Amino acid sequence: MKFISYLLSNSPSYGIFTDKGIIDLKSQLGENYPDLKSLIGCAKGMEKAKMLSHSAATTDMRYITFLPVIPNPNKILCAGMNYADKRKEFDALDQAVTLFVRFPDTQVGHNTPILKPTETQEFDYEGELAIIVGKPCFRISAQDALQYVAGYSCYMDGSVRDWQHTWFTAGKNWPKTGALGPYLTTIDEIDDFDSLTIKTYLNHQMVQSDVLGNMVHKVPEIIAYISTFTQLSPGDVILTGSPGGVGKKRTPPLFMQAGDVIEVEIEKIGHLINTVIAE
Amino acid sequence: MKFISYLLSNSPSYGIFTDKGIIDLKSQLGENYPDLKSLIGCAKGMEKAKMLSHSAATTDMRYITFLPVIPNPNKILCAGMNYADKRKEFDALDQAVTLFVRFPDTQVGHNTPILKPTETQEFDYEGELAIIVGKPCFRISAQDALQYVAGYSCYMDGSVRDWQHTWFTAGKNWPKTGALGPYLTTIDEIDDFDSLTIKTYLNHQMVQSDVLGNMVHKVPEIIAYISTFTQLSPGDVILTGSPGGVGKKRTPPLFMQAGDVIEVEIEKIGHLINTVIAE
Repeated sequence: MKFISYLLSNSPSYGIFTDKGIIDLKSQLGENYPDLKSLIGCAKGMEKAKMLSHSAATTDMRYITFLPVIPNPNKILCAGMNYADKRKEFDALDQAVTLFVRFPDTQVGHNTPILKPTETQEFDYEGELAIIVGKPCFRISAQDALQYVAGYSCYMDGSVRDWQHTWFTAGKNWPKTGALGPYLTTIDEIDDFDSLTIKTYLNHQMVQSDVLGNMVHKVPEIIAYISTFTQLSPGDVILTGSPGGVGKKRTPPLFMQAGDVIEVEIEKIGHLINTVIAE
Repeated sequence: MKFISYLLSNSPSYGIFTDKGIIDLKSQLGENYPDLKSLIGCAKGMEKAKMLSHSAATTDMRYITFLPVIPNPNKILCAGMNYADKRKEFDALDQAVTLFVRFPDTQVGHNTPILKPTETQEFDYEGELAIIVGKPCFRISAQDALQYVAGYSCYMDGSVRDWQHTWFTAGKNWPKTGALGPYLTTIDEIDDFDSLTIKTYLNHQMVQSDVLGNMVHKVPEIIAYISTFTQLSPGDVILTGSPGGVGKKRTPPLFMQAGDVIEVEIEKIGHLINTVIAE
């Protein structure tokens, strides 16, 4: 299944994304599950969603505004420097998982504008796989980790390089500089994870390309590492780093400007498209 | 005024801390202001609190359990490497404000146990001044910044040094490794900020000592810097770094162990006391 969160007539909702339109779930399950985060956190809710997934689409795609798949995550943790090419570009030597935090207000949904902050001359793209946590977990092993994953989505981890530093906080937290979507693809739909391609396009030119199997720290290991020190909950978002090819390390550098179109496409998982606007 | 958040018979409340006991506010203002965060964010609520501050104490100190002054902050941003001695100890050279994030579940209140994680051999103390934001702000100048401050509190920024790295995230986010309290001292009570002493005691021995005026990045500058990239809201907590003398850089090193008592005392602002327990 593919879940989305969206606005319809300015009212937040969520549902199942299908080729024929959206099956709205909030109107049917909203009393017990007010948002997608609460639905994916409950096995009973997910069963109900599965039963409804064969019903007719209720909502035309053209009338919705995409929200970040999880509009209100409790925690967003971001692994960085996690593909060999990217590590080379940034001379990353540390063997531990590089980790920083984004606040929820830094995110937008698919097909909505990303804001280029006025303060930066170096607004860079990073196409990434996002993990969406499905069950509470703390101190779990890598071996068990995938049981706690609801599914995957695409992330454009917009980076203000001139404010990044080795602690990342400022450079990753301007409002609406990241995009999460279009949908959450449930983990049962992915059976060949390592071979899936991840590609980033800036104005339709491919600027990053790799396969998910080339992550240095694999998905189960990243989850196990994070769960060692912090409790994870349904709807938490974990980014997994981007391939080589970011704009900062090109000659000449290549940064995002107002009017640009930025896309992150991950096979079987989604194709996230956003335009960049000036504030 | 001095505000506290607390549990009474397992029920969360907040009130004014006085020498004669606590003036409970939630029972009187709770309909409009469910928690301290919502009260300090509203000028009208603060006026009502001020009027009530002369009424009789309602609650005996001995029966409450302190919560973190703000139990549910939206954002906790932490400036590090912000006293000259500390910068020397860690060879900190960067001129920008060092910044990391703590999650709210890492905090406890005054006089409640701090948890030493099982994973660390290097659980270190850091006594710090905490700023509590009083009004929404984004992109404000240092000159205007203090207008957005509700007040100050003490913080024990417990640090898992063996997981810290240059991005801090893991080392600062184990559950219940930080303490915020005992109370929020409103900014109008502080007229000689620079001369106020900040001291940390481990088992009654002084291990850190400085004055607030020795911060490298001053409070208004830190707020202005943070507000450049992220919206701040009432109840947000900003840490301002700790003086030199942390355990990691002593010879021999001095780390916190189960049974230890750790105290952070800031003149006019508070005296925060916690015991360390093993998980």
